[in-house]
Amino acid sequence: MRSVSYIEDMQQWRSEFSFYIPVNIRFSETDMFGHVNNVSAFIYFEEARVEFLKEAGFFDSGEKNESIPIVADLQCDYHKQIYFDEKLKLYVKVNQIGTTSFDIHYLGVNKDSELCLTGRGRMVNLDAESGKPVPMSEKMKAKLSV
Amino acid sequence: MRSVSYIEDMQQWRSEFSFYIPVNIRFSETDMFGHVNNVSAFIYFEEARVEFLKEAGFFDSGEKNESIPIVADLQCDYHKQIYFDEKLKLYVKVNQIGTTSFDIHYLGVNKDSELCLTGRGRMVNLDAESGKPVPMSEKMKAKLSV
Amino acid sequence: MRSVSYIEDMQQWRSEFSFYIPVNIRFSETDMFGHVNNVSAFIYFEEARVEFLKEAGFFDSGEKNESIPIVADLQCDYHKQIYFDEKLKLYVKVNQIGTTSFDIHYLGVNKDSELCLTGRGRMVNLDAESGKPVPMSEKMKAKLSV
Amino acid sequence: MRSVSYIEDMQQWRSEFSFYIPVNIRFSETDMFGHVNNVSAFIYFEEARVEFLKEAGFFDSGEKNESIPIVADLQCDYHKQIYFDEKLKLYVKVNQIGTTSFDIHYLGVNKDSELCLTGRGRMVNLDAESGKPVPMSEKMKAKLSV
Repeated sequence: MRSVSYIEDMQQWRSEFSFYIPVNIRFSETDMFGHVNNVSAFIYFEEARVEFLKEAGFFDSGEKNESIPIVADLQCDYHKQIYFDEKLKLYVKVNQIGTTSFDIHYLGVNKDSELCLTGRGRMVNLDAESGKPVPMSEKMKAKLSV
Repeated sequence: MRSVSYIEDMQQWRSEFSFYIPVNIRFSETDMFGHVNNVSAFIYFEEARVEFLKEAGFFDSGEKNESIPIVADLQCDYHKQIYFDEKLKLYVKVNQIGTTSFDIHYLGVNKDSELCLTGRGRMVNLDAESGKPVPMSEKMKAKLSV
Repeated sequence: MRSVSYIEDMQQWRSEFSFYIPVNIRFSETDMFGHVNNVSAFIYFEEARVEFLKEAGFFDSGEKNESIPIVADLQCDYHKQIYFDEKLKLYVKVNQIGTTSFDIHYLGVNKDSELCLTGRGRMVNLDAESGKPVPMSEKMKAKLSV
Repeated sequence: MRSVSYIEDMQQWRSEFSFYIPVNIRFSETDMFGHVNNVSAFIYFEEARVEFLKEAGFFDSGEKNESIPIVADLQCDYHKQIYFDEKLKLYVKVNQIGTTSFDIHYLGVNKDSELCLTGRGRMVNLDAESGKPVPMSEKMKAKLSV
């Protein structure tokens, strides 16, 4: 297995995920090499992240007007080709919570639980007006810690 | 040549286009059949339409706050497969101007001027506040008639 | 309700659909107007069509090597704006079966069963080697007629 | 300026790029936050990478049948929001060449040469038949070193 900078112990790392969304690979997400285009992985990451934040109550009214979490960086490692008509499980977890930002990790496995995609990315909490990073409220942090 | 409902005389129809954008087919726009995915045609149509309306001064300040042209329908006929690394010319013209809407026609040809894509779609001029169709100003119509 | 060329009696037309896929609107499918980009409708159409043809046994082995159904044209009417986080039902039906081609109709409704998208498009059965239209087998037609 | 793991000295790093493609931000690449969706960055990266490899003669006949460079990982840092109708320059360079793989770096700047996107990703040279990593030929390495 290829070593990935953001994963120390793969077995441990995988065991920490529980939230996931099912992903049905679309025909338009393949490319002429016959498998899923590498760009599509980030579409799946975003869909999973948004669903996760929704579940965590991040888009509930009240919170959203003051600050908004924005993607600061993203990365993906491609471990195994994915083909049209495969069903993926795309897992998401919060890996680390800072003052103004937090890290999200991603794991995509096929129906045989084989590793297809891993990834991570930092979200920064921006003030909706100034666009500058602001500390997350305790309430926000609590939501992410569940 | 296949007959298309919105084209009466193909030669005449083609001769009425002059504005175009160059389209460089991206790898991510192909699919596992090895050619450009059918969804991509509508990406090219939108890019060409937006450039055309920009050129016509449609996004100049002053105009945009009152009403906004929205896509009401779209259609595309696929005449010839398009492959990765091809260069297309995507032509756009205004075909018919009504009171609250206008029709845009699309033509995509390859480097040998062969017909690859034809299409059309209606734009409706909506009031920015109410979201209801409103008559286009004479100024808007003038811009479209050039 | 806007009149659409391929729908004679809307109530009758809607009643003829039964197969559908659920569509979860992705964040990346919206645009800066705040709603679903018009290109995304064709992504949903494709996903629904492919699932439909799969269910109909069209991608079962044996059949696929000889001929392949290709999109000849596509059209979509946008009846109602769709927003991020909405759930759509995207219905598909075969509307008409010819010798070498068939028509697929599309219907997208929101959770209140309101009409959001309607569409249609012709599929042509191409010989996998020559790339020329060939008659569909009785077996193919039977699959589409269910 | 935010620190990025793959950039030691930003000024030095920027000075090493020369190849770029112009990117015209498409309307369909924005999202409801009003700026370019984070997924779109990877579309631009791919387009720039493919053009770069083409220029380097990587898709010339003869070479392609034996081995093929595949994306092993990708990452992007978002330094500044990008908006519809902006023109980007997307720069690409080879950063490091190994035995069976090489690293590509990416830089996206706006018309004022402000840093918008930086990124990197490893390409692995796979044997076209076995799908296993194979050493790159001296010819391939020479192409990448220019």
